[in-house]
Amino acid sequence: MQLSEVERARAELPAQVRRTPVVRGPRPGLVLKCENLQFTGAYKVRAAFTVLKRMPAGRGAALASSGNFARAFATAGRLLGIPTTLVMMEKTEPFKVERTRAAGGLVVLCENRYEARFETLRRLERDEGLVAVDHTEDPTVVAGHGTIGLELCEQVPDLETVVVPVSTGGLLAGVALAVKSRLPKVRVVGVQPSGSRAAVESFRRGQPVTLAVDTVCDALTASRPGALPFELIQRFVDDIVEVPEEAVYPAVKELAVESKLVVEPGAAVGLAAVACGLVQGPCCLLLSGGNIDPARLGRILS
Amino acid sequence: MQLSEVERARAELPAQVRRTPVVRGPRPGLVLKCENLQFTGAYKVRAAFTVLKRMPAGRGAALASSGNFARAFATAGRLLGIPTTLVMMEKTEPFKVERTRAAGGLVVLCENRYEARFETLRRLERDEGLVAVDHTEDPTVVAGHGTIGLELCEQVPDLETVVVPVSTGGLLAGVALAVKSRLPKVRVVGVQPSGSRAAVESFRRGQPVTLAVDTVCDALTASRPGALPFELIQRFVDDIVEVPEEAVYPAVKELAVESKLVVEPGAAVGLAAVACGLVQGPCCLLLSGGNIDPARLGRILS
Repeated sequence: MQLSEVERARAELPAQVRRTPVVRGPRPGLVLKCENLQFTGAYKVRAAFTVLKRMPAGRGAALASSGNFARAFATAGRLLGIPTTLVMMEKTEPFKVERTRAAGGLVVLCENRYEARFETLRRLERDEGLVAVDHTEDPTVVAGHGTIGLELCEQVPDLETVVVPVSTGGLLAGVALAVKSRLPKVRVVGVQPSGSRAAVESFRRGQPVTLAVDTVCDALTASRPGALPFELIQRFVDDIVEVPEEAVYPAVKELAVESKLVVEPGAAVGLAAVACGLVQGPCCLLLSGGNIDPARLGRILS
Repeated sequence: MQLSEVERARAELPAQVRRTPVVRGPRPGLVLKCENLQFTGAYKVRAAFTVLKRMPAGRGAALASSGNFARAFATAGRLLGIPTTLVMMEKTEPFKVERTRAAGGLVVLCENRYEARFETLRRLERDEGLVAVDHTEDPTVVAGHGTIGLELCEQVPDLETVVVPVSTGGLLAGVALAVKSRLPKVRVVGVQPSGSRAAVESFRRGQPVTLAVDTVCDALTASRPGALPFELIQRFVDDIVEVPEEAVYPAVKELAVESKLVVEPGAAVGLAAVACGLVQGPCCLLLSGGNIDPARLGRILS
């Protein structure tokens, strides 16, 4: 993959997708790239538009997602007039299912195995004639995510380190590709919570591995990094660090109390890494999304 | 007061004061001016710097405030090397007192009458030689607040209506002066909660009146508008509306859930006014601050 693919994705972004603000963070030297303030509440809507704008005419699209991508995909589909079907595991938090339906997506629930989502997707492709989007391996998705990196290079010209949450690795791969191509001296670091550390372990071993997942970060549930993202991560990423699960909620609280920003647990791992001393010096934390159940946020704050 | 005073205040703002972002709001046609993302968590730090930068050398400054101005004043004072004393009522939420002390301010508590704050202030001026700042009547304070209006005119060039929370009226006066001087066709509307409606009633009667206060908006507790702000409000403001107390917490929740922004109750009255149908059409809501006790926000979200 080349920087030009990210640049093309950026040129194609519709007006609904916001250039999200960068604000100062809750500790000295930190700035925050606020994708939680993005349309639909998370960065995924960028790639949703990138993918759907390139769809063959007259066909519906299907995607498997734990929540944020589903909502973004459904919203983008409705705006573009493309029917969307979203495959979700039965254990998905009900408010995320509801939000996706409210955004205009057809939700198909599957059993609670990460792989079952892709099995269901293949069935929909075969039986319903839908175009199944593999959001883990599709370079278009990575290019869409990378548009954040391009914005960052303009918004924070003295960028030293970018810290990015990691699930399948697509976000990290896209941002790293864009940032390192534009500003090669910037350090790019991924973060996973200890209950979902497949990318950490893969990065150490030099090849993708599959690990069981048990984390409070419901947006970071990939049991294995994608092959394409992992290849890009090996080329462009400096390190992937691991924060204890116990450090996640305090970081969510710190961002709400000190920075007045609502984030989901998966978006707080960057601040957790700073709090744990795993990342030092001036850095930009990518706040990937803000879609947290209000009652859960209430408990974290109380 | 003239626009030039606001322009001068803006030119004097230090780098610590942020040009806060404007983001899309939780309902169609709404944009949000995010002073909750301002340094110290509220807009008051603008005026705090404006006032303290013009202080006579070698003297300390004293101010009476229900919280946000106190924290901002102490923070600005420490950065400028000016000792600050803050007069607060005994009933002030403890976390606001603690925050002010942590910011480097000396806190003097007084009895729970709005006027007792000013009596204490005069005593400090007389006995301690401090420069007492009357934040309600000082034109420098209004000029500092007005810097928000200048930013808004640049950030939202197609501005139609600006909606501003009201306590003593200083914020509304400053913003209205700046906006109406730059863009005379823009509608400027103030909002008060029903438990603190002195400015609403004063605006109706055409003269400042004093009313008892009992509101969940702990940043909007003035029992009477200031004379200077009221004069400017009469010249520049189109209307002041009143929202039921019961509409405030749902607006706080909506901003957290839909817009991923933490605001204090007093900053949510603009959205409450939209929700109640008191303000129509495209408008910019000024989110004045985000300093809410985390446990209280937790209860609102649960």
